[in-house]
Amino acid sequence: IQSKLPKVGTTIFTVMSQMAAEYNAINLSQGFPDFPVSEKLIDLVYQNMQIGHNQYAPMPGLPQLREAIANKIKNTGGININIDTEITVSAGATEAIFSSVLATVNQGDEVIVLEPAYDCYIPAIELAGGKVVPVGLSLPNFTPDWQKVKDNITEKTRMVIINFPHNPSGAILTQDDITALKEILEENPQLIILSDEVYEHIIFDGNTHLSVLKDKFLASRSIAVSSFGKTFHATGWKIGYMVAPEAIMKEIRKVHQYNCFSVHTPSQYAMAEYLQNEQNYLGVSSMYEKKREFFQQAMQDSKFKVIPSYGTYFQVLEFSEVSDMGDMEFAQYLIKDKGVASIPISAFYSDKQDDKLLRFCFSKGEETLQKAADILCKI
Amino acid sequence: IQSKLPKVGTTIFTVMSQMAAEYNAINLSQGFPDFPVSEKLIDLVYQNMQIGHNQYAPMPGLPQLREAIANKIKNTGGININIDTEITVSAGATEAIFSSVLATVNQGDEVIVLEPAYDCYIPAIELAGGKVVPVGLSLPNFTPDWQKVKDNITEKTRMVIINFPHNPSGAILTQDDITALKEILEENPQLIILSDEVYEHIIFDGNTHLSVLKDKFLASRSIAVSSFGKTFHATGWKIGYMVAPEAIMKEIRKVHQYNCFSVHTPSQYAMAEYLQNEQNYLGVSSMYEKKREFFQQAMQDSKFKVIPSYGTYFQVLEFSEVSDMGDMEFAQYLIKDKGVASIPISAFYSDKQDDKLLRFCFSKGEETLQKAADILCKI
Ligand SMILES: CSCCC(=O)C(=O)O
Ligand SMILES: CSCCC(=O)C(=O)O
Repeated sequence: IQSKLPKVGTTIFTVMSQMAAEYNAINLSQGFPDFPVSEKLIDLVYQNMQIGHNQYAPMPGLPQLREAIANKIKNTGGININIDTEITVSAGATEAIFSSVLATVNQGDEVIVLEPAYDCYIPAIELAGGKVVPVGLSLPNFTPDWQKVKDNITEKTRMVIINFPHNPSGAILTQDDITALKEILEENPQLIILSDEVYEHIIFDGNTHLSVLKDKFLASRSIAVSSFGKTFHATGWKIGYMVAPEAIMKEIRKVHQYNCFSVHTPSQYAMAEYLQNEQNYLGVSSMYEKKREFFQQAMQDSKFKVIPSYGTYFQVLEFSEVSDMGDMEFAQYLIKDKGVASIPISAFYSDKQDDKLLRFCFSKGEETLQKAADILCKI
Repeated sequence: IQSKLPKVGTTIFTVMSQMAAEYNAINLSQGFPDFPVSEKLIDLVYQNMQIGHNQYAPMPGLPQLREAIANKIKNTGGININIDTEITVSAGATEAIFSSVLATVNQGDEVIVLEPAYDCYIPAIELAGGKVVPVGLSLPNFTPDWQKVKDNITEKTRMVIINFPHNPSGAILTQDDITALKEILEENPQLIILSDEVYEHIIFDGNTHLSVLKDKFLASRSIAVSSFGKTFHATGWKIGYMVAPEAIMKEIRKVHQYNCFSVHTPSQYAMAEYLQNEQNYLGVSSMYEKKREFFQQAMQDSKFKVIPSYGTYFQVLEFSEVSDMGDMEFAQYLIKDKGVASIPISAFYSDKQDDKLLRFCFSKGEETLQKAADILCKI
């Protein structure tokens, strides 16, 4: 059998999680919370199953959930969204990204990906027949270099994929970034943005998430993707959404309709109600900020260098003072010999660029974080 | 924006369901049950949410669910399946079909589709860059004409998609069909079967479902797809699975991994336990057979001709004695003027072949079926 994705192996998150399990290591690799989902939210799902909300939801998502999403977007400073034509509920953000790329990237189109990049973008582009053009974020703080982006744009560039708050680094966008992005769109009428904003509700230090949906012009040329799994720490529920202008959404829905048709109905009813209380999403940042503070504090006396994390539930640590190994080798060593699992940042680069950086997931209880930090501080 | 799927509109199931709602008609169009999901199954989902099974499941599905599926396959006369390499849990059968086609159909490959056909096959083939080769089932009983299939095979034919028990007709496979299918595979080493078996547990009159998984040779060249939504009348839960030989499954998982990564975790735990009681799936056929009997009885004194339904929850009725209209026009008339919604069979043909046939979904309570039949009998 001829492979359509010859370069794809098992995702790094599975590889590291499996190794963590095998060696009984503290698993700060794959990004998932270890604390409970809101009982209120669980009860809402249960109630909706009980009253019989168990058959197909409408293909674009339950109207009341789309309405609640539009309200959330407005409440957080975004534009008005037409729920009939501009929002679709998806089987997690991954499906939203996959269906969006398949619907909009044509054979031979170029797509710029800012690296380090979450690993689902490139296979989607390749399956769509597109050509990946990786552009590195600038170290040490993973800031976008828009001039470098511009230098890589050709008339074939169809899409730029951005992801802020940024996985794996925790970098966020500034107002200057937004200005640069708008300039790029103005100069290149063939280009659209795919904005992976799954960590939009996990942002620290009083910063505001700069969604593409907060600017009319940007929004008119962007697909924005979000995730209830991330926001409500229920990554296994596989429910998210995408927002795009009508003409683009029409094409995305054609793919979504024949990819999975619709999404888990009881969860949609539950989310629609749970979103009514703003605090349920506005309060998420402060919960995670405490965890970031805790982990950074606990790492203060280590030889690892703490790279600033402005959002997401990830913390990048630089280990050049600790070891001469490559990041993959060192990550494996940490699991096998020290009992802490992380993700090597080289895994997020197509050319496996290695800057001696590891990503640690801090969406864990304090005891777990303390245990991991104790081990890391002794190295 | 250039469409990748220029021919795709809103699926006929949504169109007819919406029209049914608009005219307050009895909705026997889109296939979904109107009776409750098992309380036991709902409670299992709830319990698993409560004990914290809310984060990512493994990409191929929960091991205990794959194990339970392998046992179900064995219990129903199928081959031994390697759960590590040959089963993947999917976001419904639609995602299984979509990911399978994307993974195995290459640019320029030809795919034979037996028509009338469920509407998700063709867009998936087209997105994969394949060429659709429709081959009609033989009327009046929707039997496969294998000679016609053979006549349409070229060296570019990569896949034949079959779907028995058959949506929309309720036709099933005979042992002769299996023999013919094996012959075709033997003669064409480049060819694989995609077998959509979502109605495998809804089969009547003491017949046995002839799964491709019941024959070693067939199974070695086939992808089999099934759906818990159909078997447990929870179409909105979006959980199904696919089985394929390791080499093929490896490619399908590459797509699945980046399409949606994993499936609703609490449902997977629940299904794994619910499948332990064989009766939960073995008892489904008799429940639906009673509904088929009820509906066919209720239609006895009508001018519609009842086409045999050997499986699924669909009943095809021929209306040439009732009206001169085309099937789409007549279906619309029935909704607007008579208050009963169905699906015109022409919608399942790429060339809209019209044999004056309508499909009625009988997975409804008896009162609803009686009401619909009363109306139809008066026409
Ligand atoms: C789908 S497993 C990866 C989870 C995640 O978002 C991450 O670890 O970055
Ligand atoms: C996804 S809506 C279609 C439901 C169905 O299986 C049918 O009506 O054939």
